[in-house]
Amino acid sequence: MNQELDRFESLYALFDESVPALLATNIANIRYLLNQPTLFDPDFGGFMLIKKGLAILFVDSRYIAKASTANLGCDIRQLTGSPWVMAASAIDELEIKRVGFEANNLSVAQWEALKERTKAELVPLKSFVEEERLIKGEKEIKNLSRAAAISDNVFSEILKVVQPGLREIDVAMEIDYRMKKAGADGSSFETIVASGPHSAFPHAGAEDRLLQLGDFIKMDFGAVYSGYHADMTRTIVMGPASKRQRQVYGGVKVAQQLVLDKLKVGMTGAEADAVARESFLAIGMADKFSHNLGHGLGLEVHEGPSLGPKNNKRLEKNMVFTVEPGLYFEGFGGVRIEDMVVMRENGVEVLTKSSKELIEIG
Amino acid sequence: MNQELDRFESLYALFDESVPALLATNIANIRYLLNQPTLFDPDFGGFMLIKKGLAILFVDSRYIAKASTANLGCDIRQLTGSPWVMAASAIDELEIKRVGFEANNLSVAQWEALKERTKAELVPLKSFVEEERLIKGEKEIKNLSRAAAISDNVFSEILKVVQPGLREIDVAMEIDYRMKKAGADGSSFETIVASGPHSAFPHAGAEDRLLQLGDFIKMDFGAVYSGYHADMTRTIVMGPASKRQRQVYGGVKVAQQLVLDKLKVGMTGAEADAVARESFLAIGMADKFSHNLGHGLGLEVHEGPSLGPKNNKRLEKNMVFTVEPGLYFEGFGGVRIEDMVVMRENGVEVLTKSSKELIEIG
Repeated sequence: MNQELDRFESLYALFDESVPALLATNIANIRYLLNQPTLFDPDFGGFMLIKKGLAILFVDSRYIAKASTANLGCDIRQLTGSPWVMAASAIDELEIKRVGFEANNLSVAQWEALKERTKAELVPLKSFVEEERLIKGEKEIKNLSRAAAISDNVFSEILKVVQPGLREIDVAMEIDYRMKKAGADGSSFETIVASGPHSAFPHAGAEDRLLQLGDFIKMDFGAVYSGYHADMTRTIVMGPASKRQRQVYGGVKVAQQLVLDKLKVGMTGAEADAVARESFLAIGMADKFSHNLGHGLGLEVHEGPSLGPKNNKRLEKNMVFTVEPGLYFEGFGGVRIEDMVVMRENGVEVLTKSSKELIEIG
Repeated sequence: MNQELDRFESLYALFDESVPALLATNIANIRYLLNQPTLFDPDFGGFMLIKKGLAILFVDSRYIAKASTANLGCDIRQLTGSPWVMAASAIDELEIKRVGFEANNLSVAQWEALKERTKAELVPLKSFVEEERLIKGEKEIKNLSRAAAISDNVFSEILKVVQPGLREIDVAMEIDYRMKKAGADGSSFETIVASGPHSAFPHAGAEDRLLQLGDFIKMDFGAVYSGYHADMTRTIVMGPASKRQRQVYGGVKVAQQLVLDKLKVGMTGAEADAVARESFLAIGMADKFSHNLGHGLGLEVHEGPSLGPKNNKRLEKNMVFTVEPGLYFEGFGGVRIEDMVVMRENGVEVLTKSSKELIEIG
């Protein structure tokens, strides 16, 4: 399947009696369908209405000039007044009797405004275009690789910057700035730099805490490149690592490598997750791995597939996702090692290339 | 009214038979109620359940340690499994028969998950805690002033950086970086640096275009400080301004000053907006002002009050909002001048202090 061609055609083929048309409001889905991964602000407030053979993009006056010159391969209409009044009129005018909508991306207020005005039946969908986005095309993989490469380069630069006395947020700021300097659209998410006891919080942000000798420093960040999101984590030690730090780090490194070695087409997300969990069980630390193993990446930083105990869908060729086991000890600190990988015919290709040997700074 | 005290008490006073309890999912509302303007990530995934005399915060395992140590003055429960299953059980367990929810901040998928499981009637609210947030307390105004001051300082620094040959995104990146260096939590929104013909798009971002002699350069940005959002715009000219540039700039400057002079307690948003529109009408450019005059600011970068042709609510003392008229000419360029102001007893106090004289660089 080459997704870069005819994304509308692929979508038309999904329509049937139960979902004969789609109202798309998720900006990532709209960008995907238009093959325009950076078009519009995330809060652009427009939508698409699509039925077999016809796709219409609705945008407000702020975006109409941009949309009109972008050669989008679909009809374009300018929003005037409430988007949902126009959506309802268009649905009825096109004689659409049932229309799927993205239930995770339409608020109750928006849905009520729509429901009051259209005669069509509104069918809530949890996933539709998202299914198409699971398998990446080669151009998408190239952009994800480039996003990973920028992130890797910034990590190697940042190792020269990190020193005792800097605040976590100083390091986070340098990471964000350097990714943009290197050509990133921006950061995939709010950069995490969590040091010492803070590193024990899986989702710590970056705060005023000063880096100190003896700290674990967990850095979780990623560049966006041409609309595609990278995500990687490395944990280093400030100064010589203690014996316990080496133990914990080694435990995560072994588990992560084991998963990378075992991943193959057809394995489920739950099976991949279990590889890490069993590796931690063997060293008596299974209860310290408190989150899922990984998640898909692409036009969003969190998308399918999910790799966790409850995910029974099979991993397929050209899916791109993270592998990020971690161990967290309250009061002591935590370690996470996260790579981005693409599933290939014979196992995974790792897109993030930074070393995973334990790095001791200074 | 001193909002900094007893925000829960103020909320309890709003409950009546039609809305005897609230399920709060909007992070800004939750931060406001807890008087913790930076607590949790925006996507923290928790919620609050509140009825007269009782407020419970639900957070997942990632945030439970942080929440427990923050002295929040409410009950805290850890989410396990689906948030909406737990919300439904808690609603029924507390014998809540009707509960308001934030219709703009609950997706249809979330609402369905909740509705299936609770016996309570779910009442969609467009605005509730938001009403309380309209009037700022002095501490909030102090944080907004500080956010404005950081933005002002960065603008004066950036005037020394801007030169022909830089890309728009280089300038945007410097603005973002310098705001963080100066103590900002981050940027209020994606910084706009729109040059030459790009400046004609009211919501242009920052792209690869190189700054050139003769360009208008429209910079729209703002720092977040302690959770409070600044927003300001200045438009400068690269090199000597042309006669037409002076005309357009002067037109916007006069309109903006006129609004600042006329704003007073009791005026409606529509009346304020009309002051700018009439000023543009007098110079034959009214059709080139294609957006609203302004919007409120606080824990969100866009909140109440709105200042536009349709906003008939009255502006009250200690509301904080933007005044941002602009004129946009396709192919030629655009000018916007935006200040943040706080409504005081005898008119507005302008929080952003940067000069509005026409600046010609180099």
